[in-house]
Amino acid sequence: MLQKPRGTRDFLPEEMEQRRSIEQRMREVARRWGYREVCTPDFEHLELFTMKSGEGIIQEMYVFEDKSGRKMTLRPEVTAAVLRMYVNEGRVLPKPIRWCYFADCFRYERPQKGRYRQFWQFGAELIGADTALAEAEVIMLADDILRSTGVAFDLHVGHLAPMKHILSGLDPADQGVIMACLDKHDREGLEAALAARRLTHLAEPLAALSDCSSVEEVFEVAGDVPERARIEEMFAILDSQEIRYRPDFGIARGLDYYTGTVFEGFARNLGAENQILGGGAYRLAHLFGGDDVASCGFAIGFDRVMVSLGGVELPHESVVGVVCTPGARGRALQVARAFREAGIRAEADLMERGLAAQVAHAAKTAEFVVIIGEREVEAGTVTLKDLRTGEQQEMGLEDAIAGVAGHGHR
Amino acid sequence: MLQKPRGTRDFLPEEMEQRRSIEQRMREVARRWGYREVCTPDFEHLELFTMKSGEGIIQEMYVFEDKSGRKMTLRPEVTAAVLRMYVNEGRVLPKPIRWCYFADCFRYERPQKGRYRQFWQFGAELIGADTALAEAEVIMLADDILRSTGVAFDLHVGHLAPMKHILSGLDPADQGVIMACLDKHDREGLEAALAARRLTHLAEPLAALSDCSSVEEVFEVAGDVPERARIEEMFAILDSQEIRYRPDFGIARGLDYYTGTVFEGFARNLGAENQILGGGAYRLAHLFGGDDVASCGFAIGFDRVMVSLGGVELPHESVVGVVCTPGARGRALQVARAFREAGIRAEADLMERGLAAQVAHAAKTAEFVVIIGEREVEAGTVTLKDLRTGEQQEMGLEDAIAGVAGHGHR
Repeated sequence: MLQKPRGTRDFLPEEMEQRRSIEQRMREVARRWGYREVCTPDFEHLELFTMKSGEGIIQEMYVFEDKSGRKMTLRPEVTAAVLRMYVNEGRVLPKPIRWCYFADCFRYERPQKGRYRQFWQFGAELIGADTALAEAEVIMLADDILRSTGVAFDLHVGHLAPMKHILSGLDPADQGVIMACLDKHDREGLEAALAARRLTHLAEPLAALSDCSSVEEVFEVAGDVPERARIEEMFAILDSQEIRYRPDFGIARGLDYYTGTVFEGFARNLGAENQILGGGAYRLAHLFGGDDVASCGFAIGFDRVMVSLGGVELPHESVVGVVCTPGARGRALQVARAFREAGIRAEADLMERGLAAQVAHAAKTAEFVVIIGEREVEAGTVTLKDLRTGEQQEMGLEDAIAGVAGHGHR
Repeated sequence: MLQKPRGTRDFLPEEMEQRRSIEQRMREVARRWGYREVCTPDFEHLELFTMKSGEGIIQEMYVFEDKSGRKMTLRPEVTAAVLRMYVNEGRVLPKPIRWCYFADCFRYERPQKGRYRQFWQFGAELIGADTALAEAEVIMLADDILRSTGVAFDLHVGHLAPMKHILSGLDPADQGVIMACLDKHDREGLEAALAARRLTHLAEPLAALSDCSSVEEVFEVAGDVPERARIEEMFAILDSQEIRYRPDFGIARGLDYYTGTVFEGFARNLGAENQILGGGAYRLAHLFGGDDVASCGFAIGFDRVMVSLGGVELPHESVVGVVCTPGARGRALQVARAFREAGIRAEADLMERGLAAQVAHAAKTAEFVVIIGEREVEAGTVTLKDLRTGEQQEMGLEDAIAGVAGHGHR
């Protein structure tokens, strides 16, 4: 039996309806903040992602050659593609540009719970605003979107400057190794890396940085940095809007194009793979041939949000089965159409069975059946049966539609 | 400057909003008919499509190996994937199964107007109902979905049996060549193919078949076929529901797994690439290790529908710019949030400019600005300015929200 590719998923209707509902909530929140949806191709020139993230990322990507020998890759993330699009088509637009996306991405991962080879991200990018308020807005938008889904999460907000200040003077390669350990919260790896480099004196301030519970404390631990006023301003905006977050200046983020503010979100009820949000301020457009524009954005791990939610309660939808005797089929199809035109899901029986078998089948998905026999055709009526109570009554079509609609469909 | 891959597209917000709106209309019509959305991966094992369509299709596909050396391909169409999903996961569901999808597909095509390397299809599959009514339902659903978009189109409905009857007795390879010419409406190619095979006597009945304007005529031209009663029943159902179609028994369809009923739709205002719908009855599940189940489905070329529509008028959306003096920022952000909570798109100014510059910038996207200065903070009011009339008035926040909402937002 042919199977789906390893690490991918099929979605049956129950799950798909829940996903579409959450996707739509996210898009609606973004719309209210002025972030409008864009879409880029599922594959890009390979250079786009190696320019952004280095050659190392090739190991995780689906790379292929097109027929003219150009190297392409399925996108492993969307920010680079959106900035490529900005460089190609968005530079003439009034700034700041507020964009969002809902997009599938692809990574060659060892299949495990919460990690798939095709996965979805809802994200936003704010391009062309270099202020504390701009960064605060992006964080507040991410917070608002996550809250709209109902997911229980913790928001961590930090800035790279204090950590970079502690590590200043180090070789950039050493900085990279140490920041990678910090990013993964790998305390053992960090100790080993520091010991190997005779930098054990940094262990204490780095640990202290992660543990700071206020922004003031951060500058006591790391010393003053030129960005201090801007950092304090951004946190003051979050506080003024009563955003619930934890200051976390231990955030290092794996992708080294972040320039300052960084933030992450973690689902409270997930295990090791609990990060559902990552973002920050960055500069990318100049790498792709554009201007060196300040940007800030985030991506939400849509699939993990769905796992964290467990299930989503959707508005009740009434379903009507339309069943008929052989001679009443034309009328039955017209009746089904009338229900649909009123917004009600109506399913005709297609199997050419007797009435009793049709009703029994309808009961598998429907709460009501509409029965059309010779008598109903002649009288111009329908018989509406409520499958939960067993009650049935002959009535006009409009009354039947009103009866089902009144029972609450979406 | 890095560019998007050849033959692919970026969608800016204006276009994307129109696409989402039409996608949503299609999904809503399908829902009312009981067709619920499913989703399969963007890539599949290569065999899935070669089993269905033969090795020839490899030329048009994006094929790659995953890290364990298995051959994968970006899906060139969705029906095979949905039937693979049915075999894996759907066989336990009550039949008939009604599924729809909105999915991107990939073909390595020479880039030209109306043909892209990543393109979108809205489709539906009805699995497990082998009746005239089942096939008629799928045709009526396709018709209803296309009509919901507003596209002007012609629906052609046919059946393969009469053509196969005319070609019966021929070598299957010869049948294939001739049906391919018919599928492409390639009359010259057809004449040459028939002449080369000394089958010129078939030219007349084949041409006559395409020209039949009624189902009765078809059987006069092609002779009687065992499927006749079923074919007549299906067309009678379409007639009883006043579906506007042209009988077209010249439809051969390129994909040779169709078993009987076939149908196509053509946008009236497009040129050579005007086909926007293709479908029919088929059997596929048994190829993938499942049961030999009767199925019927279609795919709508979403991108061509969008081209044919030209543009889609969307409901009016009021946009409010929120501008403030430096000391009023906290209050301004609260005001922006209140507008959003009422469903209104509210954009804060992020650029730290003077009030006049903020208002001028807001006018690029917004119809209203809400101005928050020291006076408004003290009085707990806002000043609402209508950018089209220039009128402005200080008022309570609730009144400002009501004023904008009353002006009509979606």
